[in-house]
Amino acid sequence: MATVPSVTVYGPPMSTAVSRVLACLLEKDVDFHLLPVDMSKRQHKSPDFLKIQPFGQVPAFQDSDLTLFESRAICRYVCDKYSERGNKRLLGLGLLERASIEQWLEAESQSFNPPSSTLVFQLAFAPRMKLKQDPKAIDQAEAKLSDVLDVYERRLGESRFLAGEEFTLADLSHLPNTQYVVDASEKVRGLFFGRENVRRWWEEISSRPSWVKVVEMQRSPPPPTTPPPKSA
Amino acid sequence: MATVPSVTVYGPPMSTAVSRVLACLLEKDVDFHLLPVDMSKRQHKSPDFLKIQPFGQVPAFQDSDLTLFESRAICRYVCDKYSERGNKRLLGLGLLERASIEQWLEAESQSFNPPSSTLVFQLAFAPRMKLKQDPKAIDQAEAKLSDVLDVYERRLGESRFLAGEEFTLADLSHLPNTQYVVDASEKVRGLFFGRENVRRWWEEISSRPSWVKVVEMQRSPPPPTTPPPKSA
Repeated sequence: MATVPSVTVYGPPMSTAVSRVLACLLEKDVDFHLLPVDMSKRQHKSPDFLKIQPFGQVPAFQDSDLTLFESRAICRYVCDKYSERGNKRLLGLGLLERASIEQWLEAESQSFNPPSSTLVFQLAFAPRMKLKQDPKAIDQAEAKLSDVLDVYERRLGESRFLAGEEFTLADLSHLPNTQYVVDASEKVRGLFFGRENVRRWWEEISSRPSWVKVVEMQRSPPPPTTPPPKSA
Repeated sequence: MATVPSVTVYGPPMSTAVSRVLACLLEKDVDFHLLPVDMSKRQHKSPDFLKIQPFGQVPAFQDSDLTLFESRAICRYVCDKYSERGNKRLLGLGLLERASIEQWLEAESQSFNPPSSTLVFQLAFAPRMKLKQDPKAIDQAEAKLSDVLDVYERRLGESRFLAGEEFTLADLSHLPNTQYVVDASEKVRGLFFGRENVRRWWEEISSRPSWVKVVEMQRSPPPPTTPPPKSA
């Protein structure tokens, strides 16, 4: 009997926030349907989509009657709901492990995400969208990211992963932005690879089967939604 | 017998992130020591402080042997650790309530906090620090905040609080930035008070005894750390 997918994710895997949720679901071994949202056609601003994601962003998520938005909140829910499936350490075992994971997950959200999101847009998406880059914004974001990575370098000299000796949601949450920026820019790649502990950490977390699978999904062409035109 | 304070918060109550933690501790009826960190003397960048807050920011937090940073992570820990004290609904009862609270707490963190933090700095702190305001940054932040409050206005037409019918950490987390910006600017005050449901919500959450107490702490002069000079 085929496994019945139990949850639905709305949004394209190339979105950093969507890919965070996909990596979490793969770690937790939770089957999912991925429903495309064509942002070029502004489907994320349609009345139906706004009912489940009132900010008009991706991803949105559904598990039976529950709908959720915000990728980090979805990941926490998946870890709590499916605590007995897949990677059981992703949100820790008990109060103290969870506290450390939440601390570094918030460091990602508050300190790492703002400059790295700017760089994802400026270095990876702006060229594809034929938009002009903003050199000042890039310089400022690189400087801020460099300061954050100094803290990570010291931390990762004390422990194998950010929250301790286990790979957790705190590490996972860094995958989407980092993948884009190390692929897009030699200079930003140097910010990660020029720091010994950060490099070791990045190589370890980005080679996990869950993330390798997400990157494959990002690089695969989306399935055709309409039949291809007949050849002449 | 006097109650022994059980946790320690490092940082000035006028910091928005420190005041978020204080409001949570007061809601949870958890006693605390507040240890000042004199940021004008760069105590937050001292080697001892960096051991517990590696980014050199406030607050830092200690509960017996555990130290934590990041205000929202500290609040989650306080709710989990002291689940049987004070306001027991702050992080929900059970999986579904917590999922909704996490969703709106992330909305605060990702959508509300960036523009409102810019406005706190530009409208409340820059004048006190005799720094020049950036009119373009203010305009952009006001526009973004207005869009976020449109979503809140609709949401708060459906439920009394953001995550449902109970006051939770999702509402609490909005208090620090909102207090500063509605106090500092008639125009920004209008963004909140010009929306019927947002206004009702703000008036209700900001009049909670926990937050009234935090505002009192912010407005009280700090205790002298050195003896006052002798009068002539």
